Amino acid sequence: MSSSIGRLFVVTTFGESHGPGVGVVVDGMPPGIAVDPAVIQRELDRRRPGQSALTTQRQEGDKVEVLSGLFEGVSLGTPIAMLVRNTDARSQDYEALREVFRPGHADYSTQQKYGVRDHRGGGRSSGRETVGRVAAGALAKTALATVGVRIVGGTVQVKDVKAMRRDWDEVEKNPVRCPDAQAATRMAEVIEAARAAQDSVGGVVEILASGVPAGWGDPTMAKLDALLGAAMLSIPATKGVEIGGGFGMAELTGSQTNDVFDGETFRTNFSGGIAGGISNGAEVVVRVAVRPATSIGKPQTAAKQGGGTTTVEIKGRHDPCICPRVVPVAESMMALTLMDAWLRQRALRGREK
Amino acid sequence: MSSSIGRLFVVTTFGESHGPGVGVVVDGMPPGIAVDPAVIQRELDRRRPGQSALTTQRQEGDKVEVLSGLFEGVSLGTPIAMLVRNTDARSQDYEALREVFRPGHADYSTQQKYGVRDHRGGGRSSGRETVGRVAAGALAKTALATVGVRIVGGTVQVKDVKAMRRDWDEVEKNPVRCPDAQAATRMAEVIEAARAAQDSVGGVVEILASGVPAGWGDPTMAKLDALLGAAMLSIPATKGVEIGGGFGMAELTGSQTNDVFDGETFRTNFSGGIAGGISNGAEVVVRVAVRPATSIGKPQTAAKQGGGTTTVEIKGRHDPCICPRVVPVAESMMALTLMDAWLRQRALRGREK
Amino acid sequence: MSSSIGRLFVVTTFGESHGPGVGVVVDGMPPGIAVDPAVIQRELDRRRPGQSALTTQRQEGDKVEVLSGLFEGVSLGTPIAMLVRNTDARSQDYEALREVFRPGHADYSTQQKYGVRDHRGGGRSSGRETVGRVAAGALAKTALATVGVRIVGGTVQVKDVKAMRRDWDEVEKNPVRCPDAQAATRMAEVIEAARAAQDSVGGVVEILASGVPAGWGDPTMAKLDALLGAAMLSIPATKGVEIGGGFGMAELTGSQTNDVFDGETFRTNFSGGIAGGISNGAEVVVRVAVRPATSIGKPQTAAKQGGGTTTVEIKGRHDPCICPRVVPVAESMMALTLMDAWLRQRALRGREK
Amino acid sequence: MSSSIGRLFVVTTFGESHGPGVGVVVDGMPPGIAVDPAVIQRELDRRRPGQSALTTQRQEGDKVEVLSGLFEGVSLGTPIAMLVRNTDARSQDYEALREVFRPGHADYSTQQKYGVRDHRGGGRSSGRETVGRVAAGALAKTALATVGVRIVGGTVQVKDVKAMRRDWDEVEKNPVRCPDAQAATRMAEVIEAARAAQDSVGGVVEILASGVPAGWGDPTMAKLDALLGAAMLSIPATKGVEIGGGFGMAELTGSQTNDVFDGETFRTNFSGGIAGGISNGAEVVVRVAVRPATSIGKPQTAAKQGGGTTTVEIKGRHDPCICPRVVPVAESMMALTLMDAWLRQRALRGREK
Repeated sequence: MSSSIGRLFVVTTFGESHGPGVGVVVDGMPPGIAVDPAVIQRELDRRRPGQSALTTQRQEGDKVEVLSGLFEGVSLGTPIAMLVRNTDARSQDYEALREVFRPGHADYSTQQKYGVRDHRGGGRSSGRETVGRVAAGALAKTALATVGVRIVGGTVQVKDVKAMRRDWDEVEKNPVRCPDAQAATRMAEVIEAARAAQDSVGGVVEILASGVPAGWGDPTMAKLDALLGAAMLSIPATKGVEIGGGFGMAELTGSQTNDVFDGETFRTNFSGGIAGGISNGAEVVVRVAVRPATSIGKPQTAAKQGGGTTTVEIKGRHDPCICPRVVPVAESMMALTLMDAWLRQRALRGREK
Repeated sequence: MSSSIGRLFVVTTFGESHGPGVGVVVDGMPPGIAVDPAVIQRELDRRRPGQSALTTQRQEGDKVEVLSGLFEGVSLGTPIAMLVRNTDARSQDYEALREVFRPGHADYSTQQKYGVRDHRGGGRSSGRETVGRVAAGALAKTALATVGVRIVGGTVQVKDVKAMRRDWDEVEKNPVRCPDAQAATRMAEVIEAARAAQDSVGGVVEILASGVPAGWGDPTMAKLDALLGAAMLSIPATKGVEIGGGFGMAELTGSQTNDVFDGETFRTNFSGGIAGGISNGAEVVVRVAVRPATSIGKPQTAAKQGGGTTTVEIKGRHDPCICPRVVPVAESMMALTLMDAWLRQRALRGREK
Repeated sequence: MSSSIGRLFVVTTFGESHGPGVGVVVDGMPPGIAVDPAVIQRELDRRRPGQSALTTQRQEGDKVEVLSGLFEGVSLGTPIAMLVRNTDARSQDYEALREVFRPGHADYSTQQKYGVRDHRGGGRSSGRETVGRVAAGALAKTALATVGVRIVGGTVQVKDVKAMRRDWDEVEKNPVRCPDAQAATRMAEVIEAARAAQDSVGGVVEILASGVPAGWGDPTMAKLDALLGAAMLSIPATKGVEIGGGFGMAELTGSQTNDVFDGETFRTNFSGGIAGGISNGAEVVVRVAVRPATSIGKPQTAAKQGGGTTTVEIKGRHDPCICPRVVPVAESMMALTLMDAWLRQRALRGREK
Repeated sequence: MSSSIGRLFVVTTFGESHGPGVGVVVDGMPPGIAVDPAVIQRELDRRRPGQSALTTQRQEGDKVEVLSGLFEGVSLGTPIAMLVRNTDARSQDYEALREVFRPGHADYSTQQKYGVRDHRGGGRSSGRETVGRVAAGALAKTALATVGVRIVGGTVQVKDVKAMRRDWDEVEKNPVRCPDAQAATRMAEVIEAARAAQDSVGGVVEILASGVPAGWGDPTMAKLDALLGAAMLSIPATKGVEIGGGFGMAELTGSQTNDVFDGETFRTNFSGGIAGGISNGAEVVVRVAVRPATSIGKPQTAAKQGGGTTTVEIKGRHDPCICPRVVPVAESMMALTLMDAWLRQRALRGREK
């Protein structure tokens, strides 16, 4: 239960960062959709470590194996299980951490929750768990594309550097995944400086879905805003989410933020494509606050399991800014959420074939 | 499904704003807990319209009737259904709106979703749906109090006026429900000015839970952050949520935001009491962005159902700023979320911590 | 959670037998379906006590009030809450039973589960809880009828008297609700004899759905057989369920029970309309074993809450055979199950409007 | 969703019979429980084909790989994923069946449901899907054993041969898995005769759980009877289930079947250990009707996908009676159901009883 998201497009991840592997089961993929495993791999390559100078230098091939649910190139409508083996897990790097609670990490809360934990890295709290999300997201994107929904995303802020434009074609051309080429250069400098200082920096990621028809989502507990909020805040290291005008609307008036609609288009999009929890046909826009990575090389005071404190210097190979790698994950979470909302709308209004 | 929240403490609301009534079924209340119906009523009184000069002047007594689940003063462990009749629904106010999609409202998206709607007010999208949430929240607060969890909240921003202190005892002493008495006065002025201008203003609400033990929440899809995010963004008119340091952390470094812990207390609380999705024993802190109320008196261009546009002036009695009334609702959503996390931790470990 | 059934057509009942009332929330009714409240009442009248000489003589009008989800004669697609007040609850009849665990009843198991209970009648275990199921079933039947699904049912066995024919038009013409008029007469005699002896008798109820298209249900955990099994065994006093050939197939061979199919019709229906968990287009046939009512007037030994035993004679007004009243409940559970399977198939294959 | 069972102990299977492999994800295993992978393998060996002369002669090693959730010999409280590769899939045996709907099989209903199918064997409808259930069941049995719950089961009927005793230690000593050694011999003869005739026979399997404390299960929709019913009827080829007295109680009276209780023990167990949906402390007893295997060698008329009929002789290596192999699967489903009920009771009351 606690490892699943979605009600009709149910995505369940499994695997510890330093166990045999990580993976996912996707239950609810509609049948008859052409699925190219190379597309899944391509999305995983966007997430994997070692892809650029800005990310961690750990090398994991992250080759995906599809274990079920596809037959002769199309989805069967049955669960699609996918597995990625762990290969570059230097577990010995972690032996010194067996009884240390690293600052900002989930070590202490995990120990308190379970009474037992795999101290080698973050276990389930590790960013590695998102491998399964991205693989599932590739399926969702494939299915959504059949009805014209397209999802893009990028890093729009790193520390105090903000993207001033949204040129989504630019995103894959720079290692920060920023939709503003000029800002990207400065963001990269900020990230490199953080790495040099054995520190890390935070940022903001923005995700946008176009082609979403009006009518997806629900009016109360399952508002599309709420489901997107849960999806985004389930990504490791995220601590905030806003839709459309978001926190900025706190400072405005109703006459400014009521999106005027002429029956075809909206003059503004403060609602971020969602009115009363239900998509209204405008672009769905979400921004996610990403905290600075908690794994840093600088010496830090840390509590020890038996009591007392020690000093830790986390010497593993880590990301000084995780935003570039959060982008494909957040896109995936957008895709999973929309996929689920789409299927629910089909249940509500769909006609049988 | 779409009207329920929670997995073990399942809260399902029902009712349209202009139908016979609104209510809630709470399934999962542990047995043997002393419940005072007057406490439920008191919470509803904090939410109801007409409670102060700053809120809408609609008068609804909002008297709650408990239909099941209590016996001789204690919970039976069975579903607790509660009903509040609608009494002051001036449906005729809405007849002119039968075929108009009000700007910023859910009218259009609702029509596209269902193909039919109750045009008299917001139906399920109305703030009136939150009556059931607050009644359920009173139960959750009662149960959580038995293990020392206490929830407080207040309005911390209205337009550009921000609370500079957090004196939670101050909240019920001013109509804005602001924990800073001085800021409250200025906030009230801003709200009155908006009402005079037939406009509305946005704001930010902050909710805090103390006494939450370490170990509640889950490490992946059901992170406590994620569930709180969904809970808050399911409240009408909310468009953003942040936990602990939130969006502010985007501009900081890991060495600043890694909350140093000595085994007993945290030096900072950028994590907002949640590390890796699991409570860490610090206070749980959430802020919610509230958009300006969409019902305003100013003339606005609106699309018509058959095509074309018209001008609407929403002449009903509405809130110029909904933050004061969002406070008890957001407290309730915090309570529902923590209640669910608590029960799930009991299932996992078999004893209370 | 534990009071709900269904995943897309979610039915949640509430209410104790001797509290203010009993009711139900139906979440997932598709919008735009014409619903006549008189039809709901008619179904409740088939379930209510006092309807014939064979049933309990308790008199409860069981008038239903629809609290939400309907507007101008059609469903809104929002939760439909329905309430029936309890009126004829002679609670004083039960005071002597405050600390007695009646044999066969749920008194002891309920006390062990919750540590507290409403001793006045069965509380949630009472047959009265099925009021909400029947009200929900009326909605499901109405919706299913729009796609040609029709559900009938009847008592096919009382003690050793078995119906030899299935004339479904006969059912409402005799108080046993037996589809065989001749058997009905003998069944009535058996039931009257049980009443005279202050005892009760068991029986079997059969439910049949026609017009179910091939393709509803799922191949593994959510087999249509499994969901029907759960639905039927959630009815009070049921202790067995079989689909199609059921237990009789244990004695046969594959060459006898493999339903030969020519592409249009099945020569036999041992599968009961469900192959591999998925409807195959034949009639869906379910039989339910109903135990003798546990409330009997005969003196019985009963355990006492503090320890020791006593003798009880349950002098309330009870049903000597509950099969006639189980029929509308079991029909309803068939309808709820098919409704849910239909919506799930729409999610899987449906096209949006 | 449709491939999962359980609400707190969530078991999701994946895999087609002729794809790369089959497996399961178990989400909700409590942390800190010692798990021996050899125990999982031993249970799978009881289920696998080729284990005796009475079962199919297909040879699949069915070696399980645990992919996650265990660390240093104990459960982490995180998802436990397990994979068994398919090795002996003679897919070419099935090429002739690409457009044939085998009688009694799910071929036709599957095609109607999904519009596409893996024609090589039963896909998800195959008995091979139960590999994951048995692996999950081994975990559940291990956890339940820590609180004294023990599950046994056996074949109690094959065609018209019935077990007259319940000597559970006998079960693993004969290939029929019958708790009555004498009956086992006659059952084996019946099965061999069916194989010689290229036919198959049905039977009944009985499962018993001892040590279940009073208080597990729920009073309405989630009655323990209902959840067991769903669990059992989700096993391929099952078409009936009964608890305790089951269908036999239809012929009895209340004074016969009301289990007299003296506060410590029950004189009879017609309730099968469950009163009002909640365990009462007596042994939980369930019987499952198993239809004759649908794969038989005898020539049969079969519909073709494009229209028209043909004659099929299913020449694969199949089980003439699947009861012996259903036993470990049904035990597993009992274990999964009790595990879930146990965790739910822990959530409700916060401590183990």
